[in-house]
Amino acid sequence: MGWEFWTKQLDEEELVVDGGFEDYSTTTGSSSSSSRAAGMNGTGPSNLVDPLEDPLPGVGTYEDFNTIDWVREKSKDRDRHREITNKSRQSTVALLHSISDAFSGWLLMLLVGLMAGALAGGIDIAAHWLNDMKGGVCLIGFWFNHEHCCWTSNETTFQERDRCPQWQSWESHVSASCVCLFPLQGAFAYVVNYLMYIFWALLFAFLAVTLVRAFAPYACGSGIPEIKTILSGFIIRGYLGKWTLIIKTITLVLAVSSGLSLGKEGPLVHVACCCANILCHLFTKYRKNEAKRREVLSAAAAVGVSVAFGAPIGGVLFSLEEVSYYFPLKTLWRSFFAALVAAFTLRSINPFGNSRLVLFYVEFHAPWHLVELAPFILLGIFGGLWGALFIKANIAWCRKRKSTILGHYPVIEVLVVAALTAIIAYPNSYTRMSGAELISELFNDCSLLDSSQLCGYKQPTNTSETGAGNSLADRPAGEGLYTALWQLALALVFKMMITVITFGMKVPSGLFIPSMAVGAIAGRLLGVGMEQLAYYHHDWFIFKGWCSPGADCITPGLYAMVGAAACLGGVTRMTVSLVVIMFELTGGLEYIVPLMAATMTSKWVADAFGREGIYEAHIRLNGYPFLEAKEEFEYSSLAVDVMRPRRADPALAVLTQEGMTVGEVETLVESTHYSGFPVVVSQESQRLVGFVLRRDLLISIDNARKRQEGVVSASQVVFTEHAPTQPDDAPPPLRLRGIMDLSPFTVTDHTPMDITVDIFRKLGLRQCLVTHNGRLLGIITKKDILKHMAQIANRDPESILFN
Amino acid sequence: MGWEFWTKQLDEEELVVDGGFEDYSTTTGSSSSSSRAAGMNGTGPSNLVDPLEDPLPGVGTYEDFNTIDWVREKSKDRDRHREITNKSRQSTVALLHSISDAFSGWLLMLLVGLMAGALAGGIDIAAHWLNDMKGGVCLIGFWFNHEHCCWTSNETTFQERDRCPQWQSWESHVSASCVCLFPLQGAFAYVVNYLMYIFWALLFAFLAVTLVRAFAPYACGSGIPEIKTILSGFIIRGYLGKWTLIIKTITLVLAVSSGLSLGKEGPLVHVACCCANILCHLFTKYRKNEAKRREVLSAAAAVGVSVAFGAPIGGVLFSLEEVSYYFPLKTLWRSFFAALVAAFTLRSINPFGNSRLVLFYVEFHAPWHLVELAPFILLGIFGGLWGALFIKANIAWCRKRKSTILGHYPVIEVLVVAALTAIIAYPNSYTRMSGAELISELFNDCSLLDSSQLCGYKQPTNTSETGAGNSLADRPAGEGLYTALWQLALALVFKMMITVITFGMKVPSGLFIPSMAVGAIAGRLLGVGMEQLAYYHHDWFIFKGWCSPGADCITPGLYAMVGAAACLGGVTRMTVSLVVIMFELTGGLEYIVPLMAATMTSKWVADAFGREGIYEAHIRLNGYPFLEAKEEFEYSSLAVDVMRPRRADPALAVLTQEGMTVGEVETLVESTHYSGFPVVVSQESQRLVGFVLRRDLLISIDNARKRQEGVVSASQVVFTEHAPTQPDDAPPPLRLRGIMDLSPFTVTDHTPMDITVDIFRKLGLRQCLVTHNGRLLGIITKKDILKHMAQIANRDPESILFN
Repeated sequence: MGWEFWTKQLDEEELVVDGGFEDYSTTTGSSSSSSRAAGMNGTGPSNLVDPLEDPLPGVGTYEDFNTIDWVREKSKDRDRHREITNKSRQSTVALLHSISDAFSGWLLMLLVGLMAGALAGGIDIAAHWLNDMKGGVCLIGFWFNHEHCCWTSNETTFQERDRCPQWQSWESHVSASCVCLFPLQGAFAYVVNYLMYIFWALLFAFLAVTLVRAFAPYACGSGIPEIKTILSGFIIRGYLGKWTLIIKTITLVLAVSSGLSLGKEGPLVHVACCCANILCHLFTKYRKNEAKRREVLSAAAAVGVSVAFGAPIGGVLFSLEEVSYYFPLKTLWRSFFAALVAAFTLRSINPFGNSRLVLFYVEFHAPWHLVELAPFILLGIFGGLWGALFIKANIAWCRKRKSTILGHYPVIEVLVVAALTAIIAYPNSYTRMSGAELISELFNDCSLLDSSQLCGYKQPTNTSETGAGNSLADRPAGEGLYTALWQLALALVFKMMITVITFGMKVPSGLFIPSMAVGAIAGRLLGVGMEQLAYYHHDWFIFKGWCSPGADCITPGLYAMVGAAACLGGVTRMTVSLVVIMFELTGGLEYIVPLMAATMTSKWVADAFGREGIYEAHIRLNGYPFLEAKEEFEYSSLAVDVMRPRRADPALAVLTQEGMTVGEVETLVESTHYSGFPVVVSQESQRLVGFVLRRDLLISIDNARKRQEGVVSASQVVFTEHAPTQPDDAPPPLRLRGIMDLSPFTVTDHTPMDITVDIFRKLGLRQCLVTHNGRLLGIITKKDILKHMAQIANRDPESILFN
Repeated sequence: MGWEFWTKQLDEEELVVDGGFEDYSTTTGSSSSSSRAAGMNGTGPSNLVDPLEDPLPGVGTYEDFNTIDWVREKSKDRDRHREITNKSRQSTVALLHSISDAFSGWLLMLLVGLMAGALAGGIDIAAHWLNDMKGGVCLIGFWFNHEHCCWTSNETTFQERDRCPQWQSWESHVSASCVCLFPLQGAFAYVVNYLMYIFWALLFAFLAVTLVRAFAPYACGSGIPEIKTILSGFIIRGYLGKWTLIIKTITLVLAVSSGLSLGKEGPLVHVACCCANILCHLFTKYRKNEAKRREVLSAAAAVGVSVAFGAPIGGVLFSLEEVSYYFPLKTLWRSFFAALVAAFTLRSINPFGNSRLVLFYVEFHAPWHLVELAPFILLGIFGGLWGALFIKANIAWCRKRKSTILGHYPVIEVLVVAALTAIIAYPNSYTRMSGAELISELFNDCSLLDSSQLCGYKQPTNTSETGAGNSLADRPAGEGLYTALWQLALALVFKMMITVITFGMKVPSGLFIPSMAVGAIAGRLLGVGMEQLAYYHHDWFIFKGWCSPGADCITPGLYAMVGAAACLGGVTRMTVSLVVIMFELTGGLEYIVPLMAATMTSKWVADAFGREGIYEAHIRLNGYPFLEAKEEFEYSSLAVDVMRPRRADPALAVLTQEGMTVGEVETLVESTHYSGFPVVVSQESQRLVGFVLRRDLLISIDNARKRQEGVVSASQVVFTEHAPTQPDDAPPPLRLRGIMDLSPFTVTDHTPMDITVDIFRKLGLRQCLVTHNGRLLGIITKKDILKHMAQIANRDPESILFN
């Protein structure tokens, strides 16, 4: 729903050449330019505006769906900072203000960490409770989850405690009222539980999708593609607002509990960014400056991953590697701080009940052997193939949803997928449990006493073979394990298919957990295979020397972990941050090499099929104006090939610094749709003086007509420093130097586009003027570059930005 | 010695306005510019040069002590890459070449990791052996160190094994030949050992300093300031060469073994960078491109820290936070890979004999309490104060060394300091041991059976008080501990003073270990104090509720660790990387918060006294042209205030695109010292066409006079695309468009300097032209910016670059 609205908006904007200017209000431009002019001349124009206060509401803000100008925003902040520093020498109050200003960034980070940590804890607890609700209800209070309900039970073992009398499954409610079906009670109970499971799944899914549709259309999806776009300088108003936060938090819990194949890790990044955006309103410094706010949002992305996995360092690297656009060192420190605060807040809430910081706590005992790198790389190849396939399939499906009738019924789509998922998932215990539980179980290293099906090995008959010191030795697989393997294989196929159609629906949906689950299943299967191979064929050449009978050579849990990393890497193309997150889960540098080998292989294999990760693919699908910082611009075009006007087009609309009347300027502005106009010395010379924004121009003229005496259509518009001499009977000139940007960026027409793109990326430009031999020739905007890139890649340049 | 030579070199260069151009050889300029021109015109000039091969030796290289042009280097690499990609579609051989080219970066990283890891292992082993040599010699082979010598000994306990008969201390050699002094044997043995200790210390120090002076003057110091400068784009030829590598490796071992207060961690970064630089010669891609090579060097810096501490993630963050200038994501992945390879190479060499990856392995058992944050922050304040004081004192001392007679006798200086260190250090066992050993011992958590003096607690008489489960409970300090505390206090004072005069001497010297040692001592003292306080006053308010009698509340080892981090942070101003390195040592997220609190406090406190870390301070002391990326440019100057020529100076020397003769051009070039000349349309219009380098110009004219028919002094020099019509009797024109850079960077005169500095930093420019209303006005070089900044900060702008 949000996208359709947006698309329309963009379509309307289409005619504007450099689609992101109109919204820059007069006084901002004048405050920044005039303070610069003041810096040079000693005295500025009379309408000098104090950069610390804005006289008009809405000044300094951007309109929706526009790109910010990083250079200007940063320059504005430096002006502000300079002002505060200068004032701080004058009085104690100003000094205190200056100090509080310096520390406000840290305070904001602290608040973001606390709020995001608390929210993540709440989401974890609520999701746990709702998930248990699908199985039954607690008699001593419906607000207890299964574990807490049985907490006070007298049963001693965990097994028995799980079946404590206080916790009543749904089937027992029904059978209590109807005892007639006694002979079929087993089957009956199963059917009742099955139906109740489907009922709850449908209810949760329905609630989630209707809440999203009704209150916050932006709350759907994982949010990471949009956050990447926002961080690169785009404005999507409301995307990080309070309604999105509230609805996303609630529907995330519902969506996760509905049993759909989705995770809550990606959306937690969105939730953390919403928190940060809302908290930014407490501090003028961040409320009023879009560039500064994006620094905070970068840190918030780190916080999101930090609370999702309990991995603060991995979170910071995730923000750096995957999400952020502008990541100065100061942001590195601050995001690290915020990520730590959030992780510790979450731990003190202790939603997993195990005092652990991390989502999946794993402890492996056996080292790995060099030979095992072969299966690890195999997992990497699997991960890469799956990643590439998933992206292609998911994008094709999403495109179909957009273009066909399917997209008009999101509620029905969600309900159908939820029903399908519930019906297929329930009979298989590995798909019935939540994704996180599944991954936990797959990562687990079997001890002798482990009762789970995955650890259903035959107990060694010959006790001497496995000494007391080696209780984890490889053992032959038993009945239980074989059943588990079959179930896992079916779960793998199911997960692979259902995730493709689930991701992109109109509910909050993360991709981390489903991807990891696919990889973990594949890894565990391979791991158990290797283990049995080593057990039965320990005399084979490859096992010689390191895997004697009775030794614990193969850890299937490690294979699951490597597989999870490989699949997640294939889908998202993360490398370092992924390895560090996994490292933080295990806490041992030991296992970094297998993880590294698998993620690298996975990335290379997946890149061979297409260089885009899932987030970039969704950015392109949605047509966001995102200039990828990772990819080099590979083509040998020049600035002159990209700039507007094209050779066949009419010449660029320019203003002259003197000689034009107010009427002429108004006619020019009205007859074009450009958002800004270069100012030149004269039409003949075309020597560039500055750049003036459409909106600034219109507001200034309007203002002058109303307030300034004698300004009429025949008045001359003057951009020079000193007004030219005029005949005495002429109306007084309108001086507009104050609203002109005196330092527009320029490149020559011969500048290779790779350098130009580099300049746009590194400086965060919106537009750049093109000159030839000192004469103005044209203009390049970010949109022109994106269109040019689309054209080269044989995609339709018009459809790429406005789908 | 090296610096004097350099200083002279720079002094000679002083007259050149933009000190870094002369070395850019003709054909490089032409290959890059002409390939761009070709891209536009379809056909290039006839002297088009294939970017993949260089026709002249030395082409594409820079002269010593010059700044590279990042934009041009990166553009060159993109041209090369495009060429390879295009060719790869034509034949299988070219395809293979393209693939091998793509993977050469990874191969290079692998080699760097292996080589640096192996070298670090060798240095560790050699330093260990030489250090033991000061105490005695192994009878079964002098090449065994103390531990290996006693490895095969039959003694059972570690204590006895340390005194195995195979290991003979020096005193026993002497006393074997002279048995007459029997009554005084104890004192005699002490004196002999003392003297032998001093002898070896002096010998090692002498060898180190003479080797450095004789073969590789660049091998002295820690190398990190210079590497920062090199990574920012400066050329110091030989600084990363094979002689520097060999001599630095040898002298590092000698310097560390001589007992001087220095560490080998910083220099390991230099060693790793040398390895990388040498290995770059194996790959054309990296040999010929200064920008690509700097990417490898950034990764090598990460490798250096990775092998120094066994902390690969910390190493990568160190490179990112502290050392690097240009750190794209690709470098992040590669440096992570290289750091891992190096760490595992080092582990397989196993120089510490404990199979641990890390330098100081620590395992703490007790959690920390929130109340303890107060002493941790206190340690942070101490670290910040010490850091600020150390930097001031060390810089003052180094300045004195440079300006007075002291600097003329570096050998004597080193010998005096070594003698002083040895004489004072020997009697105190904590200063006698190496810095790394000391830190290890201070970090250690005392167990009941620990026999070291630091664990000299009174054994609890009442066994019931400390149950079996709590063998680490706080205990009252005993005699041994009190002695240890006194010795530690003396060691603290000594280390603080001697380090100031040691760092900066003409031997390889790292600062990490001495700084950490200072902090660790202070931390341990505070920790033991807190522990005793908690033991005797556990009923105090602050200990209520968490520190009952018989509990293990305070871990003095943790205090030592926090103190070490605080002091290192105060000296270097590292934050995130430091915390991550420390985290990798302990492997537990538990202790990140204390470390974070201490390092942050330390940075804030130290920053209050001066914002420069020790490396930046040394960069400034040595006058390297380094544009700090961390600091914002705070002043409100405009480009016009910084550019040359100044208002009073004569106008900028420019070439016109046509109309000048060869003779006129030669006269202009010879009468000035500028390294490059802007080309304009005409002297009257001053409209900018391009930029041409002095050296390119001279070589081209020279070449044309020799080879081209009819080029004489009266020939016209033409920079236009089409030669102008000339009278028939005129000599043929000399066309030089090929050597002109058609896309020089320009800013307007009104551009604020903060934006200009940002452009220089982010794009890595060497110079930028300044225009006003489309007319050329002046030029800004990196050196102009540095001078301007020095001027604003009230430092002498002339002395700042050339001390």
